[in-house]
Amino acid sequence: MKGGRPVKPTSIALALLAATASAHADPLEGKRSSAEILAASASEDWRALDPENTLYIALERGRVVVMLSPVLAQDHVAQIKALAREGFYDGLSFYRVIDGFVAQGGDLFETRDVKTAAKTLSAEFDERAPEGLGFTALPDADGYAPEVGFAASLPTGYDAASGRAWHLHCAGAIAMARDEGRDTAGTEFYITLQPQRYLDRNLSVFGRVVEGMEHIQALRRVAPAETPEGDLGETILSVRVAADLPASARAPLEILRTDAEIFQEYAESRRNRPEAFFYRRPNHVDVCQLPIPVRRREAS
Amino acid sequence: MKGGRPVKPTSIALALLAATASAHADPLEGKRSSAEILAASASEDWRALDPENTLYIALERGRVVVMLSPVLAQDHVAQIKALAREGFYDGLSFYRVIDGFVAQGGDLFETRDVKTAAKTLSAEFDERAPEGLGFTALPDADGYAPEVGFAASLPTGYDAASGRAWHLHCAGAIAMARDEGRDTAGTEFYITLQPQRYLDRNLSVFGRVVEGMEHIQALRRVAPAETPEGDLGETILSVRVAADLPASARAPLEILRTDAEIFQEYAESRRNRPEAFFYRRPNHVDVCQLPIPVRRREAS
Repeated sequence: MKGGRPVKPTSIALALLAATASAHADPLEGKRSSAEILAASASEDWRALDPENTLYIALERGRVVVMLSPVLAQDHVAQIKALAREGFYDGLSFYRVIDGFVAQGGDLFETRDVKTAAKTLSAEFDERAPEGLGFTALPDADGYAPEVGFAASLPTGYDAASGRAWHLHCAGAIAMARDEGRDTAGTEFYITLQPQRYLDRNLSVFGRVVEGMEHIQALRRVAPAETPEGDLGETILSVRVAADLPASARAPLEILRTDAEIFQEYAESRRNRPEAFFYRRPNHVDVCQLPIPVRRREAS
Repeated sequence: MKGGRPVKPTSIALALLAATASAHADPLEGKRSSAEILAASASEDWRALDPENTLYIALERGRVVVMLSPVLAQDHVAQIKALAREGFYDGLSFYRVIDGFVAQGGDLFETRDVKTAAKTLSAEFDERAPEGLGFTALPDADGYAPEVGFAASLPTGYDAASGRAWHLHCAGAIAMARDEGRDTAGTEFYITLQPQRYLDRNLSVFGRVVEGMEHIQALRRVAPAETPEGDLGETILSVRVAADLPASARAPLEILRTDAEIFQEYAESRRNRPEAFFYRRPNHVDVCQLPIPVRRREAS
């Protein structure tokens, strides 16, 4: 079941027994499954989250961990960290939660002043790809971008013609909302509940949820209230930068490196699943359907 | 906000004022937005759900409405209806809920016998496209299928070479789990929480959640218990065929016809959103990112 098969659980032993007598020839026999590849990975295939670029969103439901990406959205990352450090979001809410679309949070009625953070931000819809971006392209065609792949373990688009790169609106992306003008983002942010690729390069994605996405998916659906007395949705208890918490209170997470050799084999195991369960293999993987594994770091 | 923009709500009036002075030229000015197209739709652009092919899954959280598709999975539709009418699922649970993957429900420890339903089913991974399938292809390229589009308002793949069609694993798809053998599906079903297109043509999709998907997304995440005393997840209160309920207890839902002319304009409004909010338009829409509108039928 680790391999992402909706299999009937009680019959796994039987299925394994039957596997050698499987009726369909399997050209991928001997190739490793995703689970096998990850089980055999080395510690250097994983990268510990940087506490200075990790955000914790505390909800009644539990903690949501966001990996920030200064590499392609440095101003937005600086902004959300400044806001977190001001305590700006504490006690605000996810006031707009639309099923299958986004969960949007912040200060619906603009009752709070920012202190150290900027009032508005210049767009970082895309950026000239910096030296050392470490973009790993997928060979798979994509309808929304000339090339897609991963940078810093986040889904990323790239346009060789302009040399520009941007993070993608896959599920769990975090970005700033804005008004109609490009440079009008400020404090209100959203997290995508499903892929929304049409938003790519129209808003500034600055990170991704890497743990606790089930809490975001479970948020009570709510439309923005018309008055402050209306339903403001579920409360954001606090937003904190991991580095500001004692080490013992941090989530010891690490994410698979997408610039490691192992990633190529992992991607292939998702493109064409070698497990005998599969009768058809598409020889394709959508960049938003290639989740990058996150795990708890082993005690050293 | 109806148009799917993560906009700052309190600034909408300002944004509208500013729109005429927008800095970016808009080649799509005058084209209608999705919201405008739907607002101007005629009643014949919508199709009422057929109560005989509509399933209600009752949870503590609320009711989930599933539109069944006998056109491409007649045996699976007959099976789930027979099981519903036996009361087979009543009191069972969603025992396997993996974030970003699927919510799987049924009889984890196989304690119940089927009565009128089949013990196992022949696969309906894909079917020879029947006369009157009403497949509306999208012009957009897809990495998983030769052609994608909609049949009976459900996301559908089509292969002209073989003449076969199948429903897609977009979010909210419902399908039967199975063992390794093709023809081993029986009673355990799953609903996809995110698109899982690699499962296409490997399992038999027979419908889609059209209301209450937020309840499925909110289900408590749980791995299959090892013993009946373990955590079996959230309870399924009942599964019913809508036709078996009095008309007053049915959800009066209708779905946009994907074989109506209006659908072409609607799809184009999602492919290239005409709203001035958008700075880039991808000229592409992923079939799983083109939700087909569902609404409550107006009283006649």
